[in-house]
Amino acid sequence: MKNPIITLLTDFGTKDHYVASMKGVILDINPRCTIIDVTHDVRPHDIIEGAFLLGNTFSYFPKGTIHLSVVDPGVGSTRKPVLLVTQNYFFVGPDNGLFGFVAQRERLKQVVVLTKEEYFLPEVSLTFHGRDIFAPVAAHLSLGVKPSAFGYKTKSLREFGIRRPIVKNGKLSGEVLHIDTFGNLVTNIDGEKLFQFIRGCPFVIQAGRKGIRELKKGYWKGKKGEPIALIGSGGFLEISVREGNAQKVLKVKRGDPILITTKSPAWRQALNPK
Amino acid sequence: MKNPIITLLTDFGTKDHYVASMKGVILDINPRCTIIDVTHDVRPHDIIEGAFLLGNTFSYFPKGTIHLSVVDPGVGSTRKPVLLVTQNYFFVGPDNGLFGFVAQRERLKQVVVLTKEEYFLPEVSLTFHGRDIFAPVAAHLSLGVKPSAFGYKTKSLREFGIRRPIVKNGKLSGEVLHIDTFGNLVTNIDGEKLFQFIRGCPFVIQAGRKGIRELKKGYWKGKKGEPIALIGSGGFLEISVREGNAQKVLKVKRGDPILITTKSPAWRQALNPK
Amino acid sequence: MKNPIITLLTDFGTKDHYVASMKGVILDINPRCTIIDVTHDVRPHDIIEGAFLLGNTFSYFPKGTIHLSVVDPGVGSTRKPVLLVTQNYFFVGPDNGLFGFVAQRERLKQVVVLTKEEYFLPEVSLTFHGRDIFAPVAAHLSLGVKPSAFGYKTKSLREFGIRRPIVKNGKLSGEVLHIDTFGNLVTNIDGEKLFQFIRGCPFVIQAGRKGIRELKKGYWKGKKGEPIALIGSGGFLEISVREGNAQKVLKVKRGDPILITTKSPAWRQALNPK
Repeated sequence: MKNPIITLLTDFGTKDHYVASMKGVILDINPRCTIIDVTHDVRPHDIIEGAFLLGNTFSYFPKGTIHLSVVDPGVGSTRKPVLLVTQNYFFVGPDNGLFGFVAQRERLKQVVVLTKEEYFLPEVSLTFHGRDIFAPVAAHLSLGVKPSAFGYKTKSLREFGIRRPIVKNGKLSGEVLHIDTFGNLVTNIDGEKLFQFIRGCPFVIQAGRKGIRELKKGYWKGKKGEPIALIGSGGFLEISVREGNAQKVLKVKRGDPILITTKSPAWRQALNPK
Repeated sequence: MKNPIITLLTDFGTKDHYVASMKGVILDINPRCTIIDVTHDVRPHDIIEGAFLLGNTFSYFPKGTIHLSVVDPGVGSTRKPVLLVTQNYFFVGPDNGLFGFVAQRERLKQVVVLTKEEYFLPEVSLTFHGRDIFAPVAAHLSLGVKPSAFGYKTKSLREFGIRRPIVKNGKLSGEVLHIDTFGNLVTNIDGEKLFQFIRGCPFVIQAGRKGIRELKKGYWKGKKGEPIALIGSGGFLEISVREGNAQKVLKVKRGDPILITTKSPAWRQALNPK
Repeated sequence: MKNPIITLLTDFGTKDHYVASMKGVILDINPRCTIIDVTHDVRPHDIIEGAFLLGNTFSYFPKGTIHLSVVDPGVGSTRKPVLLVTQNYFFVGPDNGLFGFVAQRERLKQVVVLTKEEYFLPEVSLTFHGRDIFAPVAAHLSLGVKPSAFGYKTKSLREFGIRRPIVKNGKLSGEVLHIDTFGNLVTNIDGEKLFQFIRGCPFVIQAGRKGIRELKKGYWKGKKGEPIALIGSGGFLEISVREGNAQKVLKVKRGDPILITTKSPAWRQALNPK
């Protein structure tokens, strides 16, 4: 592998020594690696947030990139350490749902359960597999070790905890999946699903106490202080406030419902005669 | 370009996937880039803070460094995406005042409005030009593409929003431009301006309710808990509290005024006879 | 030196331009360096926390790594800027106790006081030696300049401020040294010391109002909400709460005491007859 890139995504934060230890371990095995941080500020133990952030990032990296991801509340328990090989990338981390988005979007070629201790650190703690198992495996992989050398193949990944939006009683029902730095509410409703549901009809997006009746093209389209809806850069429905903070304006938190109702074209015509 | 360096400065924070997506895009185009974070913790939409931080950093990097800077509340609107070529560096980002400090300090050789879509991502969203326009342009630039290839030349940059200190009614009047991690109040009054104004006379620097009558050489010079004034490492007048937090002690916030008054040398002699 | 690695540890935070200036200075001198952040979120001026984090990280990096560490409340005062050469690594920073853990764990081969101004930036401020002295020295070192060229040799480092655990009145008495992102309380009592003290006898670890009577193997062993004790990944006694936050549950802060008492095997047998 030339110019191997290893990305890191964890919930370790950056105020501790945890992430740097992992980087040290990687560079000790392969000093030629390029290490890129995705984020270390996943909320502690929040596998779904980690899965969402990884799912929105991995595909921008060059083919062959190794994505090392550790949100691992079950470290040391029976959850399995795995290596995923897809048509374009490698993923290393715990099999606990963290790769759920990836598995929806990439074709899985191989899943390997990591058992070969010669690729781990000599002493494996029960508290920090990021450093002791996942980092050295990613580094050896970047040196060209074959995926199958790290353990035994398995068929399936653990079930994924993200609820998908559903249609029920004529409503499209989703939820807030992530709230970003700007306070934008990113939902689990992707643009395609949304357009399929509304099929050109008038609609209302219910977010907190607010009903929003149109999609804007970009953040700058809103009035200051007024919530707007748009399809965000990750392809999901987003609620935003121009130069403001939608989370604060709408008092919505992660997991809160987002409901979309729609009316027939006849109703639409009645509203907008013209 | 050998060993090209691209720096990143944004208000995207590091808890989201935004910055990592930009890095992925860059490395996908030029895997040999060295990417360095300036900061991603500019206050959301705060162009002036971004301009200040960029202005204090860019010149420490090697000649030829590409500074990619995105604080972009108007993303998707009519503000123009630009590439600046100065005698020493390249700057890529929105033309909204973010390069104001740079333009004061570097000789501009070329300003190019980015229009050539072959250097953008295939699909350009209206919400994330950092990833879709600025990152790929910076990466192509690092591969040696000529600046003029990215669009058409323009003459001027948008006006810059930073107020400069002024002399009025015999007072030098500036403001707090930035409050750093330590709580130090960095003003918009540079050392040169200050010394020109006080010309060796006694002076009072008014910061919040506190009057400060001398300049110290360094942070360690103060008494604990006592505000002091000094010329900081960026060349600007700074108010600091030794091993403390000037912002908390003085209850001052960004944009608050800093006033300097001075007395004639005669008055000075009266105070310090000898 | 091939592929030289320079790590950075500071209390500068990442919202300012300070860290990026240091990186610019390093790359301007040696563009081939790999720069790795350990952390910049050491609590402002907290030398002991910096020493602890550095002490837990440095040894994971490849032999020859240059560790550049700046927590420097006395910048510009009489504390000395130093370069440490140990059997495996280099350390550059202020001689104020920051290298205390390192000195306990590595064999010191040389301590050099940095005086040769040709290796500093041309203008040295009194407020930012990280940028003006330490970064350029580390960069020149990475180019292969001999340690002795940077100044004069000295014998000793400044005394180290970390209290070690002591045995008094039959109790092993330590303290909370660091609280991590997850709220885990990392103590200054290493596993070896602990096992020597308890020698297989029953024990009570007093943390806040809570007495803990056993050591678990890993974080996942506890009941939700219940404090547990374990030996953490750095080799120190740690108090943790499964998927929770021990700091919040126990209302303990850094520096608070951790007391361990033990009973004779006879007492143990009385408790667990069997």
